Amino acid sequence: MSIQFHEKTLALLAEQLAEKAIDSTQLISKIAQFQIAVPSWALGAGGTRFGRFSIGGEPRNLEEKLEDIGLLAKITKRTDAVSLHIPWDIPQDVEAVKQQAVSLGIGFDAMNSNTFQDYGQPLSYKMGSLSSADSATRKQAIEHNLQVIEVGKSLGSKGLTVWLADGSNFPGQVHFRKALQWTTESLKKIYSGMPSNWKLLLEYKPYEPNFYHTVIPDWGTSALICRQLGERAKVLVDLGHHLPNTNIEQIVATLMHQNMLAGFHFNDSKYGDDDLSTGSIKPYQLFLIFCELIGGSADGAQAWDSISWMIDASHNVKDPMEDLIQALEAISQAYAKALLVDRKKLTQCQNDGDVVGAQEVLQAAFLTDVRALVREARIQSGGEAEPLAFYRNEKIREKLIAKRGKNAQASGL
Amino acid sequence: MSIQFHEKTLALLAEQLAEKAIDSTQLISKIAQFQIAVPSWALGAGGTRFGRFSIGGEPRNLEEKLEDIGLLAKITKRTDAVSLHIPWDIPQDVEAVKQQAVSLGIGFDAMNSNTFQDYGQPLSYKMGSLSSADSATRKQAIEHNLQVIEVGKSLGSKGLTVWLADGSNFPGQVHFRKALQWTTESLKKIYSGMPSNWKLLLEYKPYEPNFYHTVIPDWGTSALICRQLGERAKVLVDLGHHLPNTNIEQIVATLMHQNMLAGFHFNDSKYGDDDLSTGSIKPYQLFLIFCELIGGSADGAQAWDSISWMIDASHNVKDPMEDLIQALEAISQAYAKALLVDRKKLTQCQNDGDVVGAQEVLQAAFLTDVRALVREARIQSGGEAEPLAFYRNEKIREKLIAKRGKNAQASGL
Amino acid sequence: MSIQFHEKTLALLAEQLAEKAIDSTQLISKIAQFQIAVPSWALGAGGTRFGRFSIGGEPRNLEEKLEDIGLLAKITKRTDAVSLHIPWDIPQDVEAVKQQAVSLGIGFDAMNSNTFQDYGQPLSYKMGSLSSADSATRKQAIEHNLQVIEVGKSLGSKGLTVWLADGSNFPGQVHFRKALQWTTESLKKIYSGMPSNWKLLLEYKPYEPNFYHTVIPDWGTSALICRQLGERAKVLVDLGHHLPNTNIEQIVATLMHQNMLAGFHFNDSKYGDDDLSTGSIKPYQLFLIFCELIGGSADGAQAWDSISWMIDASHNVKDPMEDLIQALEAISQAYAKALLVDRKKLTQCQNDGDVVGAQEVLQAAFLTDVRALVREARIQSGGEAEPLAFYRNEKIREKLIAKRGKNAQASGL
Amino acid sequence: MSIQFHEKTLALLAEQLAEKAIDSTQLISKIAQFQIAVPSWALGAGGTRFGRFSIGGEPRNLEEKLEDIGLLAKITKRTDAVSLHIPWDIPQDVEAVKQQAVSLGIGFDAMNSNTFQDYGQPLSYKMGSLSSADSATRKQAIEHNLQVIEVGKSLGSKGLTVWLADGSNFPGQVHFRKALQWTTESLKKIYSGMPSNWKLLLEYKPYEPNFYHTVIPDWGTSALICRQLGERAKVLVDLGHHLPNTNIEQIVATLMHQNMLAGFHFNDSKYGDDDLSTGSIKPYQLFLIFCELIGGSADGAQAWDSISWMIDASHNVKDPMEDLIQALEAISQAYAKALLVDRKKLTQCQNDGDVVGAQEVLQAAFLTDVRALVREARIQSGGEAEPLAFYRNEKIREKLIAKRGKNAQASGL
Repeated sequence: MSIQFHEKTLALLAEQLAEKAIDSTQLISKIAQFQIAVPSWALGAGGTRFGRFSIGGEPRNLEEKLEDIGLLAKITKRTDAVSLHIPWDIPQDVEAVKQQAVSLGIGFDAMNSNTFQDYGQPLSYKMGSLSSADSATRKQAIEHNLQVIEVGKSLGSKGLTVWLADGSNFPGQVHFRKALQWTTESLKKIYSGMPSNWKLLLEYKPYEPNFYHTVIPDWGTSALICRQLGERAKVLVDLGHHLPNTNIEQIVATLMHQNMLAGFHFNDSKYGDDDLSTGSIKPYQLFLIFCELIGGSADGAQAWDSISWMIDASHNVKDPMEDLIQALEAISQAYAKALLVDRKKLTQCQNDGDVVGAQEVLQAAFLTDVRALVREARIQSGGEAEPLAFYRNEKIREKLIAKRGKNAQASGL
Repeated sequence: MSIQFHEKTLALLAEQLAEKAIDSTQLISKIAQFQIAVPSWALGAGGTRFGRFSIGGEPRNLEEKLEDIGLLAKITKRTDAVSLHIPWDIPQDVEAVKQQAVSLGIGFDAMNSNTFQDYGQPLSYKMGSLSSADSATRKQAIEHNLQVIEVGKSLGSKGLTVWLADGSNFPGQVHFRKALQWTTESLKKIYSGMPSNWKLLLEYKPYEPNFYHTVIPDWGTSALICRQLGERAKVLVDLGHHLPNTNIEQIVATLMHQNMLAGFHFNDSKYGDDDLSTGSIKPYQLFLIFCELIGGSADGAQAWDSISWMIDASHNVKDPMEDLIQALEAISQAYAKALLVDRKKLTQCQNDGDVVGAQEVLQAAFLTDVRALVREARIQSGGEAEPLAFYRNEKIREKLIAKRGKNAQASGL
Repeated sequence: MSIQFHEKTLALLAEQLAEKAIDSTQLISKIAQFQIAVPSWALGAGGTRFGRFSIGGEPRNLEEKLEDIGLLAKITKRTDAVSLHIPWDIPQDVEAVKQQAVSLGIGFDAMNSNTFQDYGQPLSYKMGSLSSADSATRKQAIEHNLQVIEVGKSLGSKGLTVWLADGSNFPGQVHFRKALQWTTESLKKIYSGMPSNWKLLLEYKPYEPNFYHTVIPDWGTSALICRQLGERAKVLVDLGHHLPNTNIEQIVATLMHQNMLAGFHFNDSKYGDDDLSTGSIKPYQLFLIFCELIGGSADGAQAWDSISWMIDASHNVKDPMEDLIQALEAISQAYAKALLVDRKKLTQCQNDGDVVGAQEVLQAAFLTDVRALVREARIQSGGEAEPLAFYRNEKIREKLIAKRGKNAQASGL
Repeated sequence: MSIQFHEKTLALLAEQLAEKAIDSTQLISKIAQFQIAVPSWALGAGGTRFGRFSIGGEPRNLEEKLEDIGLLAKITKRTDAVSLHIPWDIPQDVEAVKQQAVSLGIGFDAMNSNTFQDYGQPLSYKMGSLSSADSATRKQAIEHNLQVIEVGKSLGSKGLTVWLADGSNFPGQVHFRKALQWTTESLKKIYSGMPSNWKLLLEYKPYEPNFYHTVIPDWGTSALICRQLGERAKVLVDLGHHLPNTNIEQIVATLMHQNMLAGFHFNDSKYGDDDLSTGSIKPYQLFLIFCELIGGSADGAQAWDSISWMIDASHNVKDPMEDLIQALEAISQAYAKALLVDRKKLTQCQNDGDVVGAQEVLQAAFLTDVRALVREARIQSGGEAEPLAFYRNEKIREKLIAKRGKNAQASGL
């Protein structure tokens, strides 16, 4: 698309919006400000239990991961932070890593611990970690999380994300209530080890890698634990971590109602925790979620700035960088469309029981083609008008393969 | 089955159990004591939105409903209470109804309000009741519940069950957070209208009759509201009110962990809120639920006597009385099997990470044929050895049809 | 929206499309030609097993149903046929009805039989109809279908839609293979009673109103039967008749691959057969379905004209007329967007394994705001620019209530 | 359990069955004859995409895999064949392997090809194999399958199982109809390469490892392809390969109705393809499946001997050998219970519309404790009375670890 055509399209859209008393300049500014973190494990090819297909040129260490995210930040202007995964991303030279990050314009988002794999630690997590019936294993898992906090402190992170994979595969394997109690007690120790300006983001997930029960299966259990930890513990929503047909936008609203939404892991799915590109399967759901986020913030239920944003997808068949570019674009679009909702009119319809009218209000926003707004926001921020085209034209993957090798594999996968 | 054969079977089972140090006399006594309430709407044929097929001889009024439950109590000895549904079951003569109930040996379980239908009340519940955006409608729904409490008080009931069907069919129709807030405020008024020895049983359900969102979709939301009401408000679990694949036994454990399980609505399902006969589709799940109930009670998490039990099924193709006989039998069996679990050995397996052993412990209980125990409990209590055969041999449905007519239709359906 | 603004928007969109060598005139013409039938039962308020809330002014007989559809045809220009439901819509005076239809510009789409309810016929369908173990009941159900064909012939219909609700609620109730065999034999008799220029549209549905098994639960079973009937028997896809997470667009493709797609029943759903307004929940899925339809037709797998289109939703909380206007708009939009797909580029991406590129192609079409095209097609056809606004401004529901009464209830619900 | 107690229990059960005119001697004989194959990949620890926890002492090569299955055969007497996975199990010395198998009393069940991973072959299967848009890749995948047939012929196998993982992760990635067509053509070439006494077992699976679409997602698609191959191509049912809530027993019946059931892969699941131990989650479903198998065979729909049986579970937290012992026991129990069903009485209930009676018939069989029958069948065949206890008492895992090492990992996982 030529720049002239972009400008013409933008001008007409601005005119259309102006008719509805929407200031497109302000919209563009909001879109430009919205930044989503990228985790360090997202730069390599993902896989399933049936195998993994390499992409080539994957980052081999923390420095190369930062490089990739730095490039992504530069061309999309939609991400400005990395979320590290310990033990894989322990920096050798903290100061050097911090300087590299500064030079790339990226900061350090919430840290991620890992107690779902065995990577050489003395006690196995096969039978659980923070919830284990064995106190020594619980202690080890707690100490790992405390170590993660230390690494995060050294880099300037302000949060700890805990995804607890603990659970069981068979009835009887685990005592539900004891496991919940032990988990709560373990998390209390971790919480008290956090600096007072950190927050703890507690995930939930109904199944996988355990297939009968998960210790923290739903938002209710996560919130139950968080309430026992303290007000800086909140519930993290990963879009793929729900049973079939769950109304996720309602969960978002319910959490904001309690001021208990820690943040988001963006991805998309058709079946389970498929970890597909955000917006590739259910774009309307993503829009509805943003409607709740904007509404909850506008109504004062929970402050927008108190929510953390991160992409968490698995790139099984796409170049991870391209996938992230598509995801950032889809998130920006959903956000932009949700900003277009005529909230006053919507409230009127809700009060009048005008169901048809309420749907019209939401659809009017969703059906609007906001690509020009998102593009303009990127251009004004100094990014590329068309980041995907830029990435391909510049042959970036080819260059990464040339530099890092065909079989480079990202650590921590 | 001859009585001789029953006794022989029972004797061998007792011997088998004795080998495992289980006292069958005690078991039989526990089975005999376990009573499950029956709701007044369960005596007529159910139906779907596509139609309803009459069964004939359905009870036409409260007195006839009590008669049916009285007969059920007499032959099964597994139920001793009725759960009424207002406005359908408002007694004309309270004292007469109480006397009839006493003479039939049945009491009055939790009362049920109805704000999901229009039955002549001034304001429609089409756009919600306790959650309505219209304050007058909320007020009307609150007052209906307060009236239900009054009826219950007059009869000796000790609880109010609230199933709130409120929700929406389309995105935008309802403001999630406001609806939740209004519901909470409405329930506070109802809660404060309850006598101090009553409890409020709050149901949750993810969908139907609303198909986009339900105001109280899951246990977490129900518990969130209950915590704001007071300690006599607890969460009611209806087995059919869950998304596909939900681990219901874990929810039971989590609620008991918080001392927040109000009780159960028993039924079974393959797809959604199918309201099929308890134990007809997933008998192992029912067993696992009873394992949690017994375990939670044994461990002191929540007292057994604080939990309410009720059957809530829809009899679309079966004679309701026969269906209830089958359901009571299935519940007794699941309870009996769960009592057989070697909890000490199970704990040992859980502590040792012996997953195979834990499964063996549960299966050893589940695979045991406990029909002789359940039958013996019924015989000792003065019920029929084979209630279904008795019901058929006595031609009870034919007699009911002769008395009440072929087209008698239960009120309130 | 002013007509000037519409024209300006349309002009820019045409310019954008021209850049991609898409002729918007041709597009508008295709959109204008696409017509979707409306069933006679869609004009009244729907309901659930828990109740029904009247809308007022519902059509009380066939003539009034035709009036409503005639109005819909006039203002939207997206529907030109009604699909009748027997026994409810048996015309008293065939010629008068035909003349009325002609004067309203509507024809008679496929006829619908009803063997899932008891409405006074001698033998009950409680235990099944075409699949019943009782041969007299099967005979009665066959004859009902043959009668429906006669009614259809008299009116000029060219098809018979069979939705077989038969199934079972409990394991053991029905013999799966016998029921399938009986159903096939019954349908053979019905098929042979159809005129040679008719087609038989055979639906499938996994559950509801039966909750354990349905005789024709999936496309595979429907196709299995159709192959035994003859080439004019094909599989009808109702969007709500699938298990959670089903890839419906793939089923469409698979059926077209076999030249076995009879047609569509449009609606939307979040949980099951929710029968919500088309496009209100999963608009991207609707778009993907149209991509398959257009692709299958373009590739010569199955001719576009051989496919029947109908809306089949239940209007529980919306004015049915407004709901239908929204549905027709949503279908037109999905169709228009699918027409925008750059199929050549998509094929290239598929051949190159360019997954990212393929997604970009589809999203480029889906994200385009096609409302101006759909509006223009309607205007050019002589319909209203904004049919919903017209309907409200003209106070049509109020007029219908004034004429037909507040409590008028559509027959056959 | 003492042998005396076993005999006493067996005697009473025999007496109970005799009352119902069931000959327990014949039952025991049938149970003893029923043999289930074990795949070579089932002897090592499984895992998920999040990791794998070693069990120790896993078989390191084909010979050790045969050893393990030989032991299993010896103590359980419920398995007599191994199902090999190529390329992992290509024998170095065919004759030696055949002799080893003979000496262990095990044969070679259907062969399994693998075109879902890259293991050094020239062309990647990342974008599909038999369905690939690239003809050279299709050719390679066909030739791999032909090679698998050759290996199987050399060992005496009589079948080829094809699980095709091909599909796509995103809309647009794959052309549905072309992929289906290419798959059919590829399979035709493989089918024609099979000896005339072989059968082709074609699996279906709705998702995983692809998360948007699978080329063969359901039984209907598998059957569609099989019909084009020839009568020796039939549909393989893996219990975990279904969408939520699928009625699998009905699929079994529908396939037998067409004489198109190739066989079974036994496992159990709560969420998706969880690959848990058969019978550990839904034992009643397993029983109902066996009811269909026995019924379909008894009615002459499809011969019992034409069906293949295999366990296909993933042992993530259990010792694989123990897991297989539990699975073989669960399958034997379900089979034994299904044999107890009073089919004559069931038919009577079905003809009479006696839904309650039909349920009683099935439950009477399911509730019977058949463990003594299964144990007796094992004893009479020369197996261990209690194989799991034997395995543990003999410290077999410890011996395997001592011999093969703590970190031995089974090939092909």
